[in-house]
Amino acid sequence: MKKFAVIVAGGSGTRMGSRVPKQFLLLNGQPVLLHTVEAFLSAYPDMEVILVLPPAYIEEGTEIVRQSSDPGRVLVTAGGETRFHSVKKGLSLTTHPSIIFVHDGVRCLVTQKLIRSCYDQAVEKGSAIPCIAVPDSIRIINDEGHKPIDREKLRAIQTPQTFQSEILLKSFELPYNESFTDEATVAEAAGYEVFLATGEKENIKITVPSDLIIAEQLLQK
Amino acid sequence: MKKFAVIVAGGSGTRMGSRVPKQFLLLNGQPVLLHTVEAFLSAYPDMEVILVLPPAYIEEGTEIVRQSSDPGRVLVTAGGETRFHSVKKGLSLTTHPSIIFVHDGVRCLVTQKLIRSCYDQAVEKGSAIPCIAVPDSIRIINDEGHKPIDREKLRAIQTPQTFQSEILLKSFELPYNESFTDEATVAEAAGYEVFLATGEKENIKITVPSDLIIAEQLLQK
Repeated sequence: MKKFAVIVAGGSGTRMGSRVPKQFLLLNGQPVLLHTVEAFLSAYPDMEVILVLPPAYIEEGTEIVRQSSDPGRVLVTAGGETRFHSVKKGLSLTTHPSIIFVHDGVRCLVTQKLIRSCYDQAVEKGSAIPCIAVPDSIRIINDEGHKPIDREKLRAIQTPQTFQSEILLKSFELPYNESFTDEATVAEAAGYEVFLATGEKENIKITVPSDLIIAEQLLQK
Repeated sequence: MKKFAVIVAGGSGTRMGSRVPKQFLLLNGQPVLLHTVEAFLSAYPDMEVILVLPPAYIEEGTEIVRQSSDPGRVLVTAGGETRFHSVKKGLSLTTHPSIIFVHDGVRCLVTQKLIRSCYDQAVEKGSAIPCIAVPDSIRIINDEGHKPIDREKLRAIQTPQTFQSEILLKSFELPYNESFTDEATVAEAAGYEVFLATGEKENIKITVPSDLIIAEQLLQK
């Protein structure tokens, strides 16, 4: 089936202590976002990538397309106010029927293996939301203070959140709600059940400078 | 006030794909556990370290004491069946009144700064349980499936869990209960309020091989 990867790269990079948004920082000499784009391009020969960027960074995005291994399969578009609006902009460039991956631009270590397993599950069940166990003891803050919560029952959610196009496109017809923190929450609000999948511990988000060091090491491994 | 660090290193290392328990793997040429011991020894000149090890690894532990910068301030003892029993063994070698740090042996990047801030808070409030924000979206598994949970309300708990000796020693008089996943849960079961403190993102646990690579990079930084 046709495949689209909507890669959302909307962060302003302030947490990196850098004026360059984190998706454009260099990792082994290439922008973080280029690593992400290449992971999807290489996973399937018929994958098309839709890069959703802050309006001020369209030029940098176009340069990433030019550097990619197959510029003809990568589109760039300007995002919106929230992740929901940005993803919706990206979805407007997809076609139906297809499998659509929505991915954080700063999760640049995503593997072909994970992309393919999410694809297979989405074809079979409608969706695949990769997640991993939570390694630490967790407490939840409540009105009385805080209390422990059984971490065996918790999952840390990753991307690519992967869906059959029918489910995702219908879900994104909903009006925006601030409870929409990712695509799974949108699909659930639209009445769909979403299915968890096995993520990868190394599929980290680059959010602080030490993450970039970690990513460099994991890439060299 | 007198200071004791009870360092618990009970893991069998099976997740590392190694026959050597992870606390004895080398990090920049030194066992993980030696880095941990040195962090506590260097934080305060009157800190004493009590290393609680699986009975089969007392010899390796003794070698770590020998390699440390101040063997006279490090004791080794054999642990018990669970973390609770191991900590209890360690506590039996402390004296009262004191401030007691209970720390995971595999959190080898703990800083002097964190140790000292936990000490200061424990002196003032009775306890300090370092924790950090949870970086990922989290779902909780329930009988119906799973649902999102507001990550702003969650905290990932770290060590050193730090207490005034009176609180910790009294708490560990309780009979063992399987809800005792860390020292904070024991103190709460004994009726004490425990106080969260600001942890450090880099205070990671070495649990899988990629953590060792990450730790090496963070140490070199």
